[in-house]
Amino acid sequence: MRIAVDAMGGDFAPKSVVEGVKRASKEFKDIEFQLYGDKNQIEELISESNNVKIFHTTELIDMNDEPVKAIRRKKDSSLVRAAQAVKDGEADALFSCGNTGALLASGLLIVGRIKGVARPGLLSTLPVLSDNGGAFNLLDSGANADNKADQLYQYALLGKYYAQSVRGIENPRIGLLNNGTEPHKGSKLTLEAHQLIAADESINFVGNVESKDLLNGVCDVVVADGFTGNAVLKAIEGTAKTAMGLLKSTVKNSGIRGILGGLLLKPSLKKMASKMSAAQYGGAVLLGTKSPVVKAHGASDSETIYYTIKQIHEMLETDMIGKFTKSIQSESKSNKE
Amino acid sequence: MRIAVDAMGGDFAPKSVVEGVKRASKEFKDIEFQLYGDKNQIEELISESNNVKIFHTTELIDMNDEPVKAIRRKKDSSLVRAAQAVKDGEADALFSCGNTGALLASGLLIVGRIKGVARPGLLSTLPVLSDNGGAFNLLDSGANADNKADQLYQYALLGKYYAQSVRGIENPRIGLLNNGTEPHKGSKLTLEAHQLIAADESINFVGNVESKDLLNGVCDVVVADGFTGNAVLKAIEGTAKTAMGLLKSTVKNSGIRGILGGLLLKPSLKKMASKMSAAQYGGAVLLGTKSPVVKAHGASDSETIYYTIKQIHEMLETDMIGKFTKSIQSESKSNKE
Repeated sequence: MRIAVDAMGGDFAPKSVVEGVKRASKEFKDIEFQLYGDKNQIEELISESNNVKIFHTTELIDMNDEPVKAIRRKKDSSLVRAAQAVKDGEADALFSCGNTGALLASGLLIVGRIKGVARPGLLSTLPVLSDNGGAFNLLDSGANADNKADQLYQYALLGKYYAQSVRGIENPRIGLLNNGTEPHKGSKLTLEAHQLIAADESINFVGNVESKDLLNGVCDVVVADGFTGNAVLKAIEGTAKTAMGLLKSTVKNSGIRGILGGLLLKPSLKKMASKMSAAQYGGAVLLGTKSPVVKAHGASDSETIYYTIKQIHEMLETDMIGKFTKSIQSESKSNKE
Repeated sequence: MRIAVDAMGGDFAPKSVVEGVKRASKEFKDIEFQLYGDKNQIEELISESNNVKIFHTTELIDMNDEPVKAIRRKKDSSLVRAAQAVKDGEADALFSCGNTGALLASGLLIVGRIKGVARPGLLSTLPVLSDNGGAFNLLDSGANADNKADQLYQYALLGKYYAQSVRGIENPRIGLLNNGTEPHKGSKLTLEAHQLIAADESINFVGNVESKDLLNGVCDVVVADGFTGNAVLKAIEGTAKTAMGLLKSTVKNSGIRGILGGLLLKPSLKKMASKMSAAQYGGAVLLGTKSPVVKAHGASDSETIYYTIKQIHEMLETDMIGKFTKSIQSESKSNKE
């Protein structure tokens, strides 16, 4: 399998990207890494080898670029060249830590959608914080601003294949994000999506779920329209961050008592903070494109990069996209019969 | 001013409701409290007086009742009788800690909507957790599952009058909940609502806001459709609760070091927990009805009840609803001219 890596995307590129690739290249001998970017800078960090190839590019898409315009104009940017390699069949997956909008646009406009998938969705992975631990996937977490019910049904299928392939969950519990758990609750959109998902017996549908229960592990995959999914993702992240900040300032402002207490608790609080961070769950995945398009956070360190490559490895090894494609094609075939 | 109180609604009714009323009745001599419920039970807790009246009712709407059915059938329930008093002009506001759906239905179907307001919205108050403290209002936080852009514009106006009247903010900063801060971002709904709100110069519109920034006090009033507002409210509440639970179990499981540290920090952590709870901000208010319809949490203690009555007092004293009504009527008049 071959992964096209945008080596120039992200706050610490190319350093952290290349370091993560270096670590992963020692473990995953079956991956060919194609690094797109400034050859001089990259060669200072890694040498070409059997499974590491470097492709020189001359342009950069940064955080301020307008996504669609950028990918149309900067044809020799590290991102567009990497995406083009996937389109041309020279690579099997696209990976970047750069401009999210530009990566999504590359996925939709260069890599291309699977036939029958109108609106690919972005899948994010978040930690479950109750005692059992684990994680859940949320999609669409923000690729779209407006979705239709049949698109939500496709997210349920995509989420199922993802959780099976990457997380090894045999029969993942799929929930529909809603404003109440009762089946009669919901917006026009979720009421219609509920029926479509419930009608598919291949899906282990646990029904409607509420955003307050996600961190307790109420299901393995949460299906949402991209607008609500994005709002819930950011609300969870923002609240967790604010709570940790409040905890820090509480400890700081509690006088000698608090400082001493804080020192005693420091190792445990660090463990708690790492439990709340999602680094080990890899990146966000655009699902519904012909090949995996994966985004890690702009501030990713080499460890997150490594985990994200592991995640891509699972998707490719299990042929997740092939399985999904077959399932929606057989469905549309049976609809015609 | 006269407040019709559903004395039988809530987990600890009538005890906590009546105790809260008792405390408030000592401070707010200008309020007449009308308590609807089982006269025997209520009289054990409070006596009728100049500003406390008791109205005997024989039925109860509980948490398992289907809202609309319940208010249609249980005509002699404490909630329906209290709502009817408001409708008949015998009381100026409706207050309950009971079944939220039934209270909303009472507001819409018995108290009635202001002419020109198609979809009243539920306003919630949440704490700002950054160093400056304070609070923000979110509406609609769940009265509706589907909203239109002109309804979001009305929420901006309703939120403005509420923040002015109850929170004493002269020129409240109004934000539109969206999937990005740039003005060109959004769903069809938020793009249209953005234009409507931005066009009204009487509104101090700070533009789009993201859910991750709400707890940092990015604005005073957050406008959202009821589906997304509800999802964000529950995500914030759920995450805060889970983070506090994780903190507790972290302290517990850190051995002697952690237990000692936890003991030293206990007073500060308690302060932090109270900062994160919203008791002092009163109840959720259905805005857009002819009189205030206010809901406090089912588990409210007498302190929350007291603060909620204070909140209703501010709304009535400042004639918030009259001001809003005048503003939308003059607007529809100027549209006709």
